[in-house]
Amino acid sequence: MVEKAMLPEFWTEILVPVCAVVGIVFSLFQWYIVSCVKLTADRGASSSTNDGKNGHGDYLIEEEEGINDQSVVAKCAEIQTAISEGATSFLFTEYKYVSVFMVFFAVIIFLFLGSVEGFSTKSQPCTYDKTRTCKPALATAVFSTISFVLGAVTSVLSGFLGMKIATYANARTTLEARKGVGKAFIVAFRSGAVMGFLLAANGLLVLYITINLFKIYYGDDWEGLFESITGYGLGGSSMALFGRVGGGIYTKAADVGADLVGKVERNIPEDDPRNPAVIADNVGDNVGDIAGMGSDLFGSYAESSCAALIVASISSFGINHDFTAMLFPLLISSMGILVCLITTLFATDIFEIKAVKEIEPALKNQLIISTVIMTVGIAIVSWTALPSSFTIFNFGTQKVVKNWELFLCVAVGLWAGLLIGFVTEYFTSSAYSPVQDVADSCRTGAATNVIFGLALGYKSVIIPIFAIAISIFVSFSFAAMYGVAVAALGMLSTIATGLAIDAYGPISDNAGGIAEMAGMSHRIRERTDALDAAGNTTAAIGKGFAIGSAALVSLALFGAFVSRAGIQTVDVLTPKVVIGLLVGAMLPYWFSAMTMKSVGSAALKMVEEVRRQFNTIPGLMEGTAKPDYATCVKISTDASIKEMVPPGCLVMLTPLIVGFFFGVETLAGVLTGSLISGVQIAISASNTGGAWDNAKKYIEAGVSEHARSLGPKGSDPHKAAVIGDTIGDPLKDTSGPSLNILIKLMAVESLVFAPFFATHGGFLFKIFS
Amino acid sequence: MVEKAMLPEFWTEILVPVCAVVGIVFSLFQWYIVSCVKLTADRGASSSTNDGKNGHGDYLIEEEEGINDQSVVAKCAEIQTAISEGATSFLFTEYKYVSVFMVFFAVIIFLFLGSVEGFSTKSQPCTYDKTRTCKPALATAVFSTISFVLGAVTSVLSGFLGMKIATYANARTTLEARKGVGKAFIVAFRSGAVMGFLLAANGLLVLYITINLFKIYYGDDWEGLFESITGYGLGGSSMALFGRVGGGIYTKAADVGADLVGKVERNIPEDDPRNPAVIADNVGDNVGDIAGMGSDLFGSYAESSCAALIVASISSFGINHDFTAMLFPLLISSMGILVCLITTLFATDIFEIKAVKEIEPALKNQLIISTVIMTVGIAIVSWTALPSSFTIFNFGTQKVVKNWELFLCVAVGLWAGLLIGFVTEYFTSSAYSPVQDVADSCRTGAATNVIFGLALGYKSVIIPIFAIAISIFVSFSFAAMYGVAVAALGMLSTIATGLAIDAYGPISDNAGGIAEMAGMSHRIRERTDALDAAGNTTAAIGKGFAIGSAALVSLALFGAFVSRAGIQTVDVLTPKVVIGLLVGAMLPYWFSAMTMKSVGSAALKMVEEVRRQFNTIPGLMEGTAKPDYATCVKISTDASIKEMVPPGCLVMLTPLIVGFFFGVETLAGVLTGSLISGVQIAISASNTGGAWDNAKKYIEAGVSEHARSLGPKGSDPHKAAVIGDTIGDPLKDTSGPSLNILIKLMAVESLVFAPFFATHGGFLFKIFS
Repeated sequence: MVEKAMLPEFWTEILVPVCAVVGIVFSLFQWYIVSCVKLTADRGASSSTNDGKNGHGDYLIEEEEGINDQSVVAKCAEIQTAISEGATSFLFTEYKYVSVFMVFFAVIIFLFLGSVEGFSTKSQPCTYDKTRTCKPALATAVFSTISFVLGAVTSVLSGFLGMKIATYANARTTLEARKGVGKAFIVAFRSGAVMGFLLAANGLLVLYITINLFKIYYGDDWEGLFESITGYGLGGSSMALFGRVGGGIYTKAADVGADLVGKVERNIPEDDPRNPAVIADNVGDNVGDIAGMGSDLFGSYAESSCAALIVASISSFGINHDFTAMLFPLLISSMGILVCLITTLFATDIFEIKAVKEIEPALKNQLIISTVIMTVGIAIVSWTALPSSFTIFNFGTQKVVKNWELFLCVAVGLWAGLLIGFVTEYFTSSAYSPVQDVADSCRTGAATNVIFGLALGYKSVIIPIFAIAISIFVSFSFAAMYGVAVAALGMLSTIATGLAIDAYGPISDNAGGIAEMAGMSHRIRERTDALDAAGNTTAAIGKGFAIGSAALVSLALFGAFVSRAGIQTVDVLTPKVVIGLLVGAMLPYWFSAMTMKSVGSAALKMVEEVRRQFNTIPGLMEGTAKPDYATCVKISTDASIKEMVPPGCLVMLTPLIVGFFFGVETLAGVLTGSLISGVQIAISASNTGGAWDNAKKYIEAGVSEHARSLGPKGSDPHKAAVIGDTIGDPLKDTSGPSLNILIKLMAVESLVFAPFFATHGGFLFKIFS
Repeated sequence: MVEKAMLPEFWTEILVPVCAVVGIVFSLFQWYIVSCVKLTADRGASSSTNDGKNGHGDYLIEEEEGINDQSVVAKCAEIQTAISEGATSFLFTEYKYVSVFMVFFAVIIFLFLGSVEGFSTKSQPCTYDKTRTCKPALATAVFSTISFVLGAVTSVLSGFLGMKIATYANARTTLEARKGVGKAFIVAFRSGAVMGFLLAANGLLVLYITINLFKIYYGDDWEGLFESITGYGLGGSSMALFGRVGGGIYTKAADVGADLVGKVERNIPEDDPRNPAVIADNVGDNVGDIAGMGSDLFGSYAESSCAALIVASISSFGINHDFTAMLFPLLISSMGILVCLITTLFATDIFEIKAVKEIEPALKNQLIISTVIMTVGIAIVSWTALPSSFTIFNFGTQKVVKNWELFLCVAVGLWAGLLIGFVTEYFTSSAYSPVQDVADSCRTGAATNVIFGLALGYKSVIIPIFAIAISIFVSFSFAAMYGVAVAALGMLSTIATGLAIDAYGPISDNAGGIAEMAGMSHRIRERTDALDAAGNTTAAIGKGFAIGSAALVSLALFGAFVSRAGIQTVDVLTPKVVIGLLVGAMLPYWFSAMTMKSVGSAALKMVEEVRRQFNTIPGLMEGTAKPDYATCVKISTDASIKEMVPPGCLVMLTPLIVGFFFGVETLAGVLTGSLISGVQIAISASNTGGAWDNAKKYIEAGVSEHARSLGPKGSDPHKAAVIGDTIGDPLKDTSGPSLNILIKLMAVESLVFAPFFATHGGFLFKIFS
């Protein structure tokens, strides 16, 4: 007797979209609350905040400051508009160029996959079960292309919406900062939540609808159905690549350029409105950190779902047509939305921030709470949506798995994510000794600061790698590649909360920028700085999650690729694999060299332009003349559009070239090599950068005896810290976080093209032997 | 009929030691010539140089400068004595501590290997050919321990002799620089050659004698004989590890400390005698770059020979007892000594340096000439010392190989080495655009300099990795792991020349230091600086060779380990292997974090001491009082002894822990992971550091319009360049070059302990299943 899941198919079909809609509604509700902070000067924001929307608005101890100055509100609104318009215009330019690429790549997908059976329209024996008949390769080509486009569009939408929300929220956060750090925190956090829930729910909904629509054609050919769905992940990640790389170059060219002249040469504060690159810098936070990161995590989510689904389709779920068990990955994500919803309430309505030192714990608690509740959630889904025993496809054989084993697979991923989050916090928050040591090393200058920072980044790799390794070992041992895929999903199941605290960072950063530009008082700036310092840490945590999940996702995709390509073993003891490993491990270096050099070159151009403006515009330093912001925005835009092409091509073309010329074994080696090497560089780069940034902030804030002995702003140790911060910028926001897309994207691309490589791959070896 | 090599065994037994002795005699002859430069003030060095020993001494265009000032000679002699004594004292301290470790580890080897058959003294069936009887495991334990100790002692001897030669030559180079750059070059180069030939010949001779002595006991049990010989490689490399790490920390703590206060704070030139850390800095060059590097390359040589020998012993050479073919690796090395001897004559007697710009080409020509001649040499050895067709052990099967195929294996390694050398030169020499770009980025400060430098290092990885990958593919495809081992040997066959041009660097560096300290004129210093700049590039080339050969050696050792441990496949699609890969790829980061932090901390201590002396010793800045050099020497010594323990333990214990607790499959993953990740970091670290150093020198030398626009010394771009140089110090001289020892050492250790792991390994998995 074939065991089926407890949850009937009918309820699955209802529960998934309902949860997605709940997520979207919750997100819109948060947006509504944020929008209650008015940005119009005539009414002001003074009286509308005690209507109970934050529950206990008046317990905040801090004094209100300058809340009746209406001219400030108008100024904030103006700056916000400038940032928002800059970001929108950049994203449209970026999407215009990328869409050309997408059309081109869609054609390649169609042609390559269609050619597998010579564009025949006849049904064929299935790949895994030769006794059954499956839809032709041409159908896979058509539907893969469609889902690729859908994934790309959803990814664009995720990034764009995130950016819109963030630029909507930044000035509101600034205005709330006048009333105290707690109020400002809530606005920034709620805005982050809008983005988190919108992305998670949207990704789930589109995937769910696509599956159901494709099912109409595919019927019971689930092997073909879920093979086509993989294009969704590919679309999501290839957009994410351009988003991350383009946005990353944009933001860091502006940031580095602004800092090098403003802070180092002219000795004016960060975000000073006299600095011509200041608008470009603030635009950059939104297009790089928000839009790029949104696309990135959406890509991870889409890919881990696809990896799990494709393995499931050839496991007993798929063979027995148990739709509920098939959709286990989507049910986990649905549960995740509900869990994150409850978690958010803890930050917005149950606890409350009263002092600066409570910000970081509040954000950290979000991680802990969501993880604890989600563990229960996973258990519920595992016991209701899975048969108590089932078989999973394991490289040619079927492996028997119990539902509690699969629960452990998901849970180990979830908790590994939390552990990675904690370690990242330890290494990047100024509350702990690593960052303080780095700050202390500034005493002897920039060189020791850099040496200590690099060493810190290298060291921060150790525990996350063990966490990932243990997750892989547990999930792989229990349920082969399906286990690894659901472990990745477990790590991403609380993505809504993860994104919320991650997006919180750039919003606070922008809020600080607006405060400075609007000429608000020093105390307001201190409050936004405090928010921002916590944001640096959460951004690093977000990157840790993104990298950890990317590692698991890539491995799962790799497993699916290997299965689909019909490889029996990937044996290190064969020359084809070993050279693949070596070259694959080199790719992240090649990629980083490109992106870092791009940032460096673009920053040099920016520096020259900023210097030119300071030298040629009379009255600029005195604040009597306005700088030419638009030229700086244009420099960043042009540089990022131009410079994102070579690294993008490297990542997109490598699997095609290796697969076609050298065959699937070498490609398997390349994927493994880039995975195990890329993870390390990505973690160390983002932690090194985060630590340098916070070491600088630690010196500036001067909250301890030790910190004050290094300061104040402008002292020699502070100058050394600024240099470290500037070096860290491209590491933590351009090259580092792009690397997880590199490893995921190459894996998912290989998977999509696996039928093609299996048929036509290894061209070079074929002609030589 | 079993085909045998053309060369009779009798001649092999004669040729190998004869070539080794020729190498030693040649080396002593070079030493004699160097010693003709007198360091005693009464006779001076003015007239004794035109006696024809440099052939055409008087064609040099440059003017002689201050050669009749006898007080300078006395001063140089005094400084040289101080450096030599400091280096000797440090090495003795280091060896004292390391010898404790060596004894401890020798006991572990004996106990672990002896326990394989419970310390039984009975003969057993052989591992690979069960029909034959082999000596007991206890014999392997005893002889492995002996060869381990022999390898360690030879390594110590290599490092120590190298240091003695270098400290003997440095002041002589300075004195010759008074007569022109050509004369100084010849002295520095000859001294390098002394070291190169002595090491190559010594390593070969000891290995040859050991094999012949062990053969008396083992008789025709060649399997056991060459298994025991592997201990020689382990001994060599474990000493090299401590030498590289200890010496690297020593030299860079002193260098960074001296620069941070001297150049950055006090604005006094490098190597100024007023700087209290200056003697420690110069001692460091000799214990780190010379002794450490000598031990390192000796280790590579010993290991690649051992890897080839152990595979050969279970191939047809070993089975058919064809001693000449067995000793093919040693014959290649013997031929290498003769080829390098001819090559050296090109630099010392045939061509001649007349101007600064000829230095780098002269050194580069050494590489080209030796490679071209050696290709012929390899062909001769391959056709005379190998049967025209034979079988090679290939993971359980025997693979038929032709002698021309093996020729290609050795040749591809040799030429890959040359290619790596050229690429390294391109990326680290100020004659090409990469370093000039880095120098140019100093215009906008230290931050862009660091960003560009890191990007340069990452980019410089690409071609060497392809070169290594192609070597592996060719050699692996033709002759399995034996092919890879002889490819490594091919790359190292011109080791005498490689070491000569490598050792030339620190000797020139020291010569410059002595010139500065002895108060010699600015022009002399310019000449030594020119020698030194070329030395930076050749040092980077030497490191490139060391890393490239380490990659090949490690793979060959890995293959031997896998065979010996009885593993059939190392399949990436198993959880044990994949977590091994991931954790293995992390180890180089962990190791680098330790070594970099050690340098940073030791440098901080040094900075404080140097500052203290400047602040408390009256008249120090004015040059009227002498600094307390000894305290700085002590700080470097103490720091390096203390700090070399944790990274040393990490490398030495990891294979033991992983093998014992997690078993041979996971260990195979760890070895592969650390290999493919470590190679990349090692190459990028040493090239980044080399490029920064030369970017600084490029600005200082001001030889082009562009360079002058960035200078002079003390300008803002120059200050930024100094920061980059300081950051690069630990990268290029401590963490980077230690990494190739990490990957080699873990591989050879695993091979030595393979019988133990095969019997007792995987403890954790055993108790859980």
